[in-house]
Amino acid sequence: MKKPTVVMYGIGAMGSIIARMLLERDAEIVGAVGRSSAGKKLEEVAQLSKGSSEVIVDSDIEAVLKRTHPDLVVMTIASYMDDVRDGVLTCLRNGANVISLSEENLYSWLTSPEDAAKIDAVAKEHGVTYSCSGHQDGYWVQLVAALMGTAHSIDEVRGKATWNVDDFGPELARDQRVGDTVEEFDAWLRTAERPPTFGRNSLHALAAASGLTVIDSQTETEPVLAGEEIRCNALDTVVPAGRVIGFTDIDTVHTAEGPVLVLEMTGKVYVEGEADNNEWTLTGEPNLDLANLVLPTHLTTCATLVNRIPQVLSAAPGYVTIAELPRLQFMAGSLGSHVTA
Amino acid sequence: MKKPTVVMYGIGAMGSIIARMLLERDAEIVGAVGRSSAGKKLEEVAQLSKGSSEVIVDSDIEAVLKRTHPDLVVMTIASYMDDVRDGVLTCLRNGANVISLSEENLYSWLTSPEDAAKIDAVAKEHGVTYSCSGHQDGYWVQLVAALMGTAHSIDEVRGKATWNVDDFGPELARDQRVGDTVEEFDAWLRTAERPPTFGRNSLHALAAASGLTVIDSQTETEPVLAGEEIRCNALDTVVPAGRVIGFTDIDTVHTAEGPVLVLEMTGKVYVEGEADNNEWTLTGEPNLDLANLVLPTHLTTCATLVNRIPQVLSAAPGYVTIAELPRLQFMAGSLGSHVTA
Repeated sequence: MKKPTVVMYGIGAMGSIIARMLLERDAEIVGAVGRSSAGKKLEEVAQLSKGSSEVIVDSDIEAVLKRTHPDLVVMTIASYMDDVRDGVLTCLRNGANVISLSEENLYSWLTSPEDAAKIDAVAKEHGVTYSCSGHQDGYWVQLVAALMGTAHSIDEVRGKATWNVDDFGPELARDQRVGDTVEEFDAWLRTAERPPTFGRNSLHALAAASGLTVIDSQTETEPVLAGEEIRCNALDTVVPAGRVIGFTDIDTVHTAEGPVLVLEMTGKVYVEGEADNNEWTLTGEPNLDLANLVLPTHLTTCATLVNRIPQVLSAAPGYVTIAELPRLQFMAGSLGSHVTA
Repeated sequence: MKKPTVVMYGIGAMGSIIARMLLERDAEIVGAVGRSSAGKKLEEVAQLSKGSSEVIVDSDIEAVLKRTHPDLVVMTIASYMDDVRDGVLTCLRNGANVISLSEENLYSWLTSPEDAAKIDAVAKEHGVTYSCSGHQDGYWVQLVAALMGTAHSIDEVRGKATWNVDDFGPELARDQRVGDTVEEFDAWLRTAERPPTFGRNSLHALAAASGLTVIDSQTETEPVLAGEEIRCNALDTVVPAGRVIGFTDIDTVHTAEGPVLVLEMTGKVYVEGEADNNEWTLTGEPNLDLANLVLPTHLTTCATLVNRIPQVLSAAPGYVTIAELPRLQFMAGSLGSHVTA
């Protein structure tokens, strides 16, 4: 394959980075669909270098597909199955392979089995592939699965990851309940209808990539409280001591084979000196660990997806998760040179 | 496959651990060959639990193969191609798959191309597979290749690993030149005929696993000097300040695609508070890192090899390196249940 042709479905922060990476890796962007940027030049919306693209952003994915017949759609519009399903099906029915950043779709066979089966069937019917990647693919699944591959026996694998509420906007800060009293937090938690955590879907992918059979998945949520008064930049406010500055989702997955998989994911307001981290410990024979200190998550999210593209274009038709794709690897130079199908 | 049948070729420190792990993972040990332990019970030589094996150690690999016709030989007799080639060929010619801890054979296509081709041809002729694994498979290749898979561009990947001379015997301490003056070390280095470093072969495997083409490999060696007087337990002596306490091999591999792969491997006498480590940094977009703080190398060496067994038994015939085997993963329960061939 010379230059894979790509339609960008979503050109927000992530889509814009991916568009730039695609051009640098010798893919051809033949169309783009954006919610609020229709009619503008992709080059401007995605802040691409001048003269790099002639594409005008459209608002109708189906019209773009019928006009451009791309090899691949890169979809960055939403996280959850309910919000991506229809768009994915539209792309597949128009004969395009799709790779998405949807966190739930990293492995949806347990959280949305009917929709997963539907997507799988439609993809097979049209001879194309749907897959998802992102930061979790590398840091919560592939690295951890490789670490597990150096163990003789495994009782538990436990990951701890943190992110700073202040790196995102006020909407996410409110979602993380920043400023709540403990009572307000507890009241919210009792009635909250939350979609599956990203941790749960990642652990399901990790189990599948490790040949383990999930028998039970639980999520517990614990507030993180301010030890002393702390400033939240995202909300432009000061949170008093004792109030909520975020929370931790603790996902626990039991497997038929024995190993228990746990991920503690904390989103909170950082105090001076705190930084994102990603730490995994394995309890078994032997005890093992793994840590990443530098976590430019926006870039790893996009770069990992881009490195997966040749594998998705080479894969068998269907909903093919990262548990079934080949080993994650760097794809040097032009993406098309790595396509084997 | 129910229970893979295995012959242990070498039952030293590593072979003994592997034998125990194999029995715990539902493999059947049908024979064993040892240099100095012939005639003894494997159970005693390998310190296995009482009643776990009836095997008597033999001295003749060919006789054992002809008697037992194993699915697999686990070979732990030596590190370098010159010392393993004949034994590997004997096993392959007798129709046995072979997995070995030979560090050079982790990827020998560049350091011993004729022997690698010979082994490959004989393996194909007899319909069996030869492969190598060990600690480097996980910590210097698979984890690093996965990290690289989260990058958009790579200038350099640099690993730093250390080991303590005092964890091994006096022979290795002398090999690491402990106690040399700088002049003695330099004189040795000028004339030393050293086999390829483990670092070089690991970087060749990493390049192959990442689809990169090696164009040049260099090894530089630098002494590590005692800052102050330091005790070497392996030699039961005190090394004066300014004398050699070990050395660092710096392997550098250039690739046609651009990324430079570097591994700095230091074997030296540790001072109080120093511990083995394994750290990798990636320079590119973005900069990335990876570290393992707990490194029970004996156990990870053996466990990784054992987890590779089902893949080796399922692989196409030939000399199949870890760059071509599927993703390293934990193989829960009985090894035979994971064999797909």
